[in-house]
Amino acid sequence: MPGGGCYRALYSPAWSAASELVAAWLKEAGLLVRRDAVGNVWGRVEGSRGGRAIVTGSHIDTVRGGGALDGALGVVAAVEAVASLVASYGRPTRILECVAICEEEGSRFNTNLWGARAIADRIEPGEVERVRDGDGTSLADAMRAVGLDPAGVAGAVRRDIDAFLELHIEQGPILDEQGPRLGVVTAIAGTAHLEVTVRGQPDHAGAMAMTRRRDALLGASAMALAIAEVAVRMGHPAVATVGTIVVEPAQVNVVPGVARFVIDARHSDPAARADLVNEVTNACKVIARERGLDVDVRAVRDRPPVRLDPRIAEVLRRACAAAGVAPRDMTSGAGHDAQVLAAAAHAGMLFVPSIGGRSHCPDEATAAEDVILGARALATALRELSYQS
Amino acid sequence: MPGGGCYRALYSPAWSAASELVAAWLKEAGLLVRRDAVGNVWGRVEGSRGGRAIVTGSHIDTVRGGGALDGALGVVAAVEAVASLVASYGRPTRILECVAICEEEGSRFNTNLWGARAIADRIEPGEVERVRDGDGTSLADAMRAVGLDPAGVAGAVRRDIDAFLELHIEQGPILDEQGPRLGVVTAIAGTAHLEVTVRGQPDHAGAMAMTRRRDALLGASAMALAIAEVAVRMGHPAVATVGTIVVEPAQVNVVPGVARFVIDARHSDPAARADLVNEVTNACKVIARERGLDVDVRAVRDRPPVRLDPRIAEVLRRACAAAGVAPRDMTSGAGHDAQVLAAAAHAGMLFVPSIGGRSHCPDEATAAEDVILGARALATALRELSYQS
Repeated sequence: MPGGGCYRALYSPAWSAASELVAAWLKEAGLLVRRDAVGNVWGRVEGSRGGRAIVTGSHIDTVRGGGALDGALGVVAAVEAVASLVASYGRPTRILECVAICEEEGSRFNTNLWGARAIADRIEPGEVERVRDGDGTSLADAMRAVGLDPAGVAGAVRRDIDAFLELHIEQGPILDEQGPRLGVVTAIAGTAHLEVTVRGQPDHAGAMAMTRRRDALLGASAMALAIAEVAVRMGHPAVATVGTIVVEPAQVNVVPGVARFVIDARHSDPAARADLVNEVTNACKVIARERGLDVDVRAVRDRPPVRLDPRIAEVLRRACAAAGVAPRDMTSGAGHDAQVLAAAAHAGMLFVPSIGGRSHCPDEATAAEDVILGARALATALRELSYQS
Repeated sequence: MPGGGCYRALYSPAWSAASELVAAWLKEAGLLVRRDAVGNVWGRVEGSRGGRAIVTGSHIDTVRGGGALDGALGVVAAVEAVASLVASYGRPTRILECVAICEEEGSRFNTNLWGARAIADRIEPGEVERVRDGDGTSLADAMRAVGLDPAGVAGAVRRDIDAFLELHIEQGPILDEQGPRLGVVTAIAGTAHLEVTVRGQPDHAGAMAMTRRRDALLGASAMALAIAEVAVRMGHPAVATVGTIVVEPAQVNVVPGVARFVIDARHSDPAARADLVNEVTNACKVIARERGLDVDVRAVRDRPPVRLDPRIAEVLRRACAAAGVAPRDMTSGAGHDAQVLAAAAHAGMLFVPSIGGRSHCPDEATAAEDVILGARALATALRELSYQS
């Protein structure tokens, strides 16, 4: 794509091609392959003792201009780990499954964690019709275009998963800079999305005096700077980001009358996250008042922080130790499928370093030896869970 | 349109409808009507003594979400003034023409003053093919769609115009707040458009620590505030506006890696305008350096200030006096067709008040009695120029 990087948007041709590729790998590994009601791709090997399933995987979609590893690493490592376990040790005692989750990023549609929410029975009534992409296409129509029935979304629900393990890149600089080479995630930060609309007055950019303007973009600019300042002052792991902004009427020669942007605010501690949301909201209101602007701040997403399963974390720590690494316990600032699947299973996550902490960009990278280390630790953990005697 | 106001984009259906309406009015007034090679609509009454033409009019296009008067007032008043002169005084001694200029605002295409430049022979080689709208449609294709031949643009050139008179709303607050009710424009501010590209680093909005970011939008925000500050400090009539901004990758959960915006900087004094451009450029560079960002500032438009014709200004002052108003001499911060036609004719402009100084917005308004006053003064000036014995 322009600017480099990849973009596998949910239900797009690139996404379909990737789904088919993963299905082919799973088939090649001898797994029973199926596509579920929302397009998650599953590969399954039956366990000799049945029971609830041990599942590993990650998402197959990407952000726009994303890197090669976010999501894809966890899918490829899942296939590799399960295939090599079955090749080495034969049939597991427990049902063992790989999953390529259809959507996590929220890149195309105004929703996210779609695939994991479908598995965990967290899709909202009417969501398939209501949620649309930038071109106005509904999720339902996009599903139909790839041969899925939007009326059948509930068919993706799984109530028989025991454990979900996800290998993922850290997407931050901690492991890369401070080590060690593996991290065990104990909690995932809660994300609040606040939609901010600033209303001033559109005026002629040549004729209206500077001192008489109510410029919505200048208000939004001051707010963006103040929002970042709030997170910096609160300190790690608080983050607050303005990733999108649009102005109206968006003409070179017209003072912006409206500016709209979204704040992404995160913290792994529920109380601190609430403070962060309050402080950025207040900062916007104070600036609007000072500049004679109207401002509306509306919460459009409010996901609480999630603790991952302590027992699975122990399994992952043992697996890391077996690979020769004493892992770091970490909280994830990024959201992950595991945070949703934690409601339906015992969920755990393993991080490998991101070089320079870079992610959601074409430069996203992890050293090959760290990829191998992560995949090996994942396989070891899956073996402990799936080959119990 | 959404948000109110009108939008007559060049070569759009709304524009075509308005052009046909004006043509019908001109025909009804008994004028000889024609559409020229770029779609300017002319109505002509031959003068008994021939010679170079006396022309009045303004533009028929609008900004997106624009008001009812910007451009349209000068077109309607032109038809009304010429029709009533011919009705009252019969055939003029000089050729007298009305013109509805096809485009001035630069709303649809990445160019402006298209209609006046076609008349004044200021279209650049290859411009019809090169210039495109937001959907990628070239001016040439848009022309073909309304039955115009892009190869024939040069046919619009006029070298036989003696005087061009334009009635327009002020689009600023001076006449409305300080009076009087008519202004004679002596100069039009030069406009510089600077395209600014800020490059930082896209990162994960949840995982990358605040202190490690190179956020292009935060840089652009600081720049927008500094740019306005430069113009405020320089004082009237300096103005500097950021009217458009886009970020990349424009995802809620990604730190913006790129921000692009355009600065519109104006001053009626050439040296002061150069200072303004230098200062806003430097402000962007200083902020980029402080924030570890790259910045590129590129002049995409650089129109010098234009002095209008002193002799025509005298005619307009006499016409105002005849209407009972001692007019104010003004410089225009807004750009106008007259600034281009000043290269091809003796050009003059008359301003009527804008209520609250509002323009380029649905609230744009002028008191009915001021509209009548302006049209009457225009007719008086045209009479002096066209009915010389």
